[in-house]
Amino acid sequence: MTPTKLADLLEGLDVVLSGPGDVEITGLATCREAGPGDLTLLSDAKLVAKLTEREFAAVVTNAELAEKLEDCGRPLAVTDDPKGLFTTLAARLRPQRPRREIGVSKAAEMHPTAVIGPDTNIHPRATVGPHVTIGRGCEIYPGVVVGAGCVIGDGVVLHPGVVLYEDVTLGDRVVVHANAVLGADGFGYELKEGRHERLPHFGTVRIEADVEIGAGTTVDRAMFGETVIGEGTKIDNLVMIAHNDRIGRHNILVGQCGLAGSVTTGDYAVIAGHSGIADHVTLGAQSVVASMSGVHRDVPAGEVWGGTPAIPMDEMKKVIFNWKKAGETRAEVKRLTREVAELKAELAAAKSTEDDGPADPRVAA
Amino acid sequence: MTPTKLADLLEGLDVVLSGPGDVEITGLATCREAGPGDLTLLSDAKLVAKLTEREFAAVVTNAELAEKLEDCGRPLAVTDDPKGLFTTLAARLRPQRPRREIGVSKAAEMHPTAVIGPDTNIHPRATVGPHVTIGRGCEIYPGVVVGAGCVIGDGVVLHPGVVLYEDVTLGDRVVVHANAVLGADGFGYELKEGRHERLPHFGTVRIEADVEIGAGTTVDRAMFGETVIGEGTKIDNLVMIAHNDRIGRHNILVGQCGLAGSVTTGDYAVIAGHSGIADHVTLGAQSVVASMSGVHRDVPAGEVWGGTPAIPMDEMKKVIFNWKKAGETRAEVKRLTREVAELKAELAAAKSTEDDGPADPRVAA
Amino acid sequence: MTPTKLADLLEGLDVVLSGPGDVEITGLATCREAGPGDLTLLSDAKLVAKLTEREFAAVVTNAELAEKLEDCGRPLAVTDDPKGLFTTLAARLRPQRPRREIGVSKAAEMHPTAVIGPDTNIHPRATVGPHVTIGRGCEIYPGVVVGAGCVIGDGVVLHPGVVLYEDVTLGDRVVVHANAVLGADGFGYELKEGRHERLPHFGTVRIEADVEIGAGTTVDRAMFGETVIGEGTKIDNLVMIAHNDRIGRHNILVGQCGLAGSVTTGDYAVIAGHSGIADHVTLGAQSVVASMSGVHRDVPAGEVWGGTPAIPMDEMKKVIFNWKKAGETRAEVKRLTREVAELKAELAAAKSTEDDGPADPRVAA
Repeated sequence: MTPTKLADLLEGLDVVLSGPGDVEITGLATCREAGPGDLTLLSDAKLVAKLTEREFAAVVTNAELAEKLEDCGRPLAVTDDPKGLFTTLAARLRPQRPRREIGVSKAAEMHPTAVIGPDTNIHPRATVGPHVTIGRGCEIYPGVVVGAGCVIGDGVVLHPGVVLYEDVTLGDRVVVHANAVLGADGFGYELKEGRHERLPHFGTVRIEADVEIGAGTTVDRAMFGETVIGEGTKIDNLVMIAHNDRIGRHNILVGQCGLAGSVTTGDYAVIAGHSGIADHVTLGAQSVVASMSGVHRDVPAGEVWGGTPAIPMDEMKKVIFNWKKAGETRAEVKRLTREVAELKAELAAAKSTEDDGPADPRVAA
Repeated sequence: MTPTKLADLLEGLDVVLSGPGDVEITGLATCREAGPGDLTLLSDAKLVAKLTEREFAAVVTNAELAEKLEDCGRPLAVTDDPKGLFTTLAARLRPQRPRREIGVSKAAEMHPTAVIGPDTNIHPRATVGPHVTIGRGCEIYPGVVVGAGCVIGDGVVLHPGVVLYEDVTLGDRVVVHANAVLGADGFGYELKEGRHERLPHFGTVRIEADVEIGAGTTVDRAMFGETVIGEGTKIDNLVMIAHNDRIGRHNILVGQCGLAGSVTTGDYAVIAGHSGIADHVTLGAQSVVASMSGVHRDVPAGEVWGGTPAIPMDEMKKVIFNWKKAGETRAEVKRLTREVAELKAELAAAKSTEDDGPADPRVAA
Repeated sequence: MTPTKLADLLEGLDVVLSGPGDVEITGLATCREAGPGDLTLLSDAKLVAKLTEREFAAVVTNAELAEKLEDCGRPLAVTDDPKGLFTTLAARLRPQRPRREIGVSKAAEMHPTAVIGPDTNIHPRATVGPHVTIGRGCEIYPGVVVGAGCVIGDGVVLHPGVVLYEDVTLGDRVVVHANAVLGADGFGYELKEGRHERLPHFGTVRIEADVEIGAGTTVDRAMFGETVIGEGTKIDNLVMIAHNDRIGRHNILVGQCGLAGSVTTGDYAVIAGHSGIADHVTLGAQSVVASMSGVHRDVPAGEVWGGTPAIPMDEMKKVIFNWKKAGETRAEVKRLTREVAELKAELAAAKSTEDDGPADPRVAA
């Protein structure tokens, strides 16, 4: 970015500047990553030490944390809402491009039965199939394919290469990132005479309002009924949601996690990265699955589980502690074995003294 | 769907209806997921209890299971093949869209040397490269790219966004789901003077008949020779098959599993979700790898392995049992240590009495 | 391939042929996979046994290894650099297709502000957005989408379906395989009044020279600043790189591994398949993470870590050894418990004899 004087950057904002305003800012960075020329952010007392290790040009913070930075020798921009100010400054420094007004491009492949709302961009090379309905203010990027019968709400963004199979429903303000696939047939077969016969998938996929779906993620259609992603749920990249899953509202599904068929989750559940959930499992509301875990049983509401097979995280921590102690335990068992043998021998010797003869005929010779 | 009377839905089918036929059906659902208005299915005695917990409008079942549902107060549609009937009803309720007759679209990008069979649809915005052969009755959806020299059999379906690099071969009736990639270069490098130099990949990919490949899955081309997916094998979403793998016939590869290079599998092998197979490993015929497992050694035919590093599942279950008991074992070792110390002291005391003097000067005071 | 006589194949190359030159070669294969008609390669003494199990037509090897193959009865092509010769022969047998001269296709969707270098192919159905710069000698395949403001160096290859969001930078000779996605928004939200609010991502992605990125892989843009992939790093398929990661130079990231946000790696780090790295972790230069591992702590330079939670591999091997011994340990503890009880009883009995009465008043009653 073009270097900008700190005072110019803060112009007109509700902020108290302590220190020189003519410092040149060349970038923004979090306090863990700040380097020379960067304006950085301190909004968490735990990160003071991290920040003082870094080079930076100036820092946005609040009054309380500003006291801890008095000796840092760099200008402080002090405000009640440092994160909010930082985001405002980011937008000043690197303004988003204005939205292009494309409308329905002539280079898009539109089926004549499709109905498109006002103020919606269908970019060149997008494909919209028969009997599709798309709402107002949507952005349908190049390479997107919207299958027959899909129903798309208002303010929806489908990034390049997104594929919707037939009859998928998207609520308002849904965002789907590039190359994600919604509505492919679920993975269901029946073995007949030595061959896996596909089970027909008559169901669909319904994505509720304000859901965001990451790049390359796949959500399969139900065999009967619907695969559902609940309102406000956020799904990261390369996640797999299988047929007949019913994800609750406001869940967080982190990158590369995978859910087998007919999984149900309550509201505000969290599944961390790379974890797998077995079929027909239920994750309770506000439950958390730790990363790299394999869950084979239901997780009660509010609990944190982890490991493979997953158990409550408190128990898992003990298991892990005991893994590391197992060598020590084995050494102690060896020592005890030796000591017990010695005790036996001593006792036998004592008895033998007592009896004026060996207690154990085996040691008599 | 439009509500339909149960009797109308069953019209003309070989089924015995017990109960009123004028119940309105508004959907189909499995017995774990049925709700009000749903026609559901009971074909497994183990699921009777699940079903009785749910609301539903009517149930398809067989004569034997019908007896267990006598008191459920809902109409029963009784048949010898409940699953088959259910599928027939699903097709009645939600008929598949008729296939569109497109032929070779003028909006597709066809190389003049490509040869396309009769009754094949090449949708707008598909790309077919030089010297490609495509059979009859295929469906090549928008956004598909078929690289130079590919040979595609009859009845093949390539869903939107599928990419075939050069010289990939697909057998008859292969189905590839959206955004899957077949034939990218394998991940092979040689470190020369501090830089990873790409090893050229002269090989190809051959997919045999009746294989199905999931959305977002990748199958890399061989360095020399072929990466092969055997006849009838089914591969789920986001699976990775590396260079020179040779997958047997009728395998099941579940979502997000990954196979490193030169893996070989026998016929009817199963790899469950999220598992990884190390390079050069062989999985025997009818072997099973449990979910979330990491396999570093060959798995004999017919065996079930799991865990990381994977071992036979029976052994793994014992390992897991012992994980959980490790805390208990440690507590017992502590107790034994204490008891052995006490025994030692007692024995010493006993000896000292015997000798008219303390055996251990430390306990003399 | 067309069968070719071995002598014809070797024509003009610096190689000593021992054995008949009229053997017909029908393919090339590594020595683990060779079959009838194949010319194979032996460059590693450890593989002699593997080779002798296989059928093959002839073998490329060096003088030292040739001695071990004297009795194999097949022609030997002997050279100082068997691997190099084998690659040369592969190129002779299956010559790469000549590059097509396309230039900027009229069927590509080019924004008028885009600047394209000489000798670059923009294939039909590629999309290049506003203010994009692309260097010379690039290959931009069908279905690629290059977002506004992207800057692409010389000799770059973007395979079909690759998506670059806005303002992504690619160095010279970068190769991105099909359907990979660079620059999607990172997965960052803040919970406000029960809803996950997206944190704006003002940052970008910078890919340095000679990086290769696998099919279906995703690299998210930074919240502020840049997500960086260092020079010469090679990334396999279906890998996930999150916002603000800073990957060093010449790393190897194997298939389906995933890095959470703000991960840093030194030069020459290796992350094996399916592993996950937690956010803010640092992997030192030349460190190695074993496959299927979950790393939650920093890995020092040069160390090999594995397991979940990952620890140094040497320790992990002991942990795994002790897992398997845990049943044995439990059995020994049971035996010790029994033996200690017997000793106690014996000692009590001995005392009682000695005292003509019970040694322990507690057992007197």
